[in-house]
Amino acid sequence: MIDVCLLGTGGMMPLPYRALTALALRYNGRTILVDCGEGTQISMRQQGISFNPIDVVCFTHYHADHISGLPGLLLSMGNSDRTEPLTIIGPRDVERVVNSLRIIAPGLPFKINFIELKEDVEVLDILGLTLTAYRVNHSILCYGYSVSLKRAGKFDPVRAKELNIPVQYWRELQHGNEVVYEGETFTSDMVMGGERKGLKVTYCTDTRPVPIIEEIAKDSDLFICEGMYGDMDKAADARDKKHMMMQEACEIARKADVAEMWLTHYSPSMNKPQEYLEELRKLFPRVVVAKDRFVKELKFEES
Amino acid sequence: MIDVCLLGTGGMMPLPYRALTALALRYNGRTILVDCGEGTQISMRQQGISFNPIDVVCFTHYHADHISGLPGLLLSMGNSDRTEPLTIIGPRDVERVVNSLRIIAPGLPFKINFIELKEDVEVLDILGLTLTAYRVNHSILCYGYSVSLKRAGKFDPVRAKELNIPVQYWRELQHGNEVVYEGETFTSDMVMGGERKGLKVTYCTDTRPVPIIEEIAKDSDLFICEGMYGDMDKAADARDKKHMMMQEACEIARKADVAEMWLTHYSPSMNKPQEYLEELRKLFPRVVVAKDRFVKELKFEES
Repeated sequence: MIDVCLLGTGGMMPLPYRALTALALRYNGRTILVDCGEGTQISMRQQGISFNPIDVVCFTHYHADHISGLPGLLLSMGNSDRTEPLTIIGPRDVERVVNSLRIIAPGLPFKINFIELKEDVEVLDILGLTLTAYRVNHSILCYGYSVSLKRAGKFDPVRAKELNIPVQYWRELQHGNEVVYEGETFTSDMVMGGERKGLKVTYCTDTRPVPIIEEIAKDSDLFICEGMYGDMDKAADARDKKHMMMQEACEIARKADVAEMWLTHYSPSMNKPQEYLEELRKLFPRVVVAKDRFVKELKFEES
Repeated sequence: MIDVCLLGTGGMMPLPYRALTALALRYNGRTILVDCGEGTQISMRQQGISFNPIDVVCFTHYHADHISGLPGLLLSMGNSDRTEPLTIIGPRDVERVVNSLRIIAPGLPFKINFIELKEDVEVLDILGLTLTAYRVNHSILCYGYSVSLKRAGKFDPVRAKELNIPVQYWRELQHGNEVVYEGETFTSDMVMGGERKGLKVTYCTDTRPVPIIEEIAKDSDLFICEGMYGDMDKAADARDKKHMMMQEACEIARKADVAEMWLTHYSPSMNKPQEYLEELRKLFPRVVVAKDRFVKELKFEES
């Protein structure tokens, strides 16, 4: 199970009623935070998400609205007695940028490890999840992130009994290990079905539409995507500033055939993003015009 | 008239219901901001204080809860089409600290001028006000600020008539200038009474009690002072961390004989700072346990 909380839905600057876009993903008691603008820690507190279990912070890019909350978060993590190292992942210069901001957060009781993204697509194993960073197309170097959780095939107890494997060995086989019993070797594939559908959540902001987004987001259970403007009069603005229209996000979601899409990163000029919902549903029926602190529990399908 | 707005009352970290301590002083259409922690710009928006008229930002010190909102504020000021230069005042290294934070706010449409405080007490003329920075005693180099507005003496029209000064020259004399009329020289002091009581607001956080605070705050119309804890069991904590108890602030206010004191910079561990009010009033009757966005209009006395 992955717990998703979209901590904010604003772009550019924090507003009293709209926090800056950031995402908390919780799995197995640990948390991955994607982006951390000014006020992200306030939204986390509002949602009751504690700072201590944050093991990984990923940055899409280094515009202030995506990273200015980092020094304060680091201090709050320090104040919550964290001593385990923290991993910070981001585009080129992640260490230099974070250290420059740390002029106001110098002494921390935990170490920071940096992972600098170098390739257009990088796949990392993080906290038992597969984290894919993929380069998008913004005014500065920017990445999207996708997190997926694999699910092994289903164990077949009838087959295990037919093979005369004692019950106490079943667990080993379920975990993919070999078992030797009375001189005979049993392998996992003898009793496990093919890999089942896992879970996938994909995050994408700030960018123009580019093919890699659709490719990475393909079949996601949840796709969280920038929708900077809904008014088509702003389409030229979106192009110039390398942002995405709500309508463009819907087109990507449709092609990627995601189960659900949440729009986010609204322009401060857009007071009521909800007003475009009806129009957007014609483009992609499973679109949600998200609000701050929308949550979703992603669970494996019954099978 | 000076408009005072205490933008927040929190110390250490922003909370959903308590913004970090910062002060906006508005005079003659311009704004001085003292401190700018994470979320200060959100509180300004809530209060309807616009970013463009901010001409001066003063920093007490460079702990994150007093400065982490700066990069976002600078960008919001840039987005509100500011082109006039901004002055930033602060302790040693102000330029290095601000430029280090500007790694995430690099391109701005206005220039920043820096004033680095070097002496224990510095007096500056700012926007027609007298700004006094005074060094206090925190774990790192830290200053308090006091802003005062002088008020000239009262013009005496009876005396001006006795001296046969024509009405068209009165204005010059009221502004402190000399007038020569029919070979005779008239000076301002001939028609103006002695200087009248002006306005003074003094801000002080984070520090242990030191004599300079009382001296600078003397006779302030409003004294805004740190009261980190109210529970006397925390007195050792306050001493160790170089912060001030509410009770210590009251003692300073009493000695400085200020017209009113607002407490601020509450520890996140203090849920209900109001609960100490009754006890504090015994120490200093004109104490106010301030809340976020408390405002006061300081006006010259009728005379």
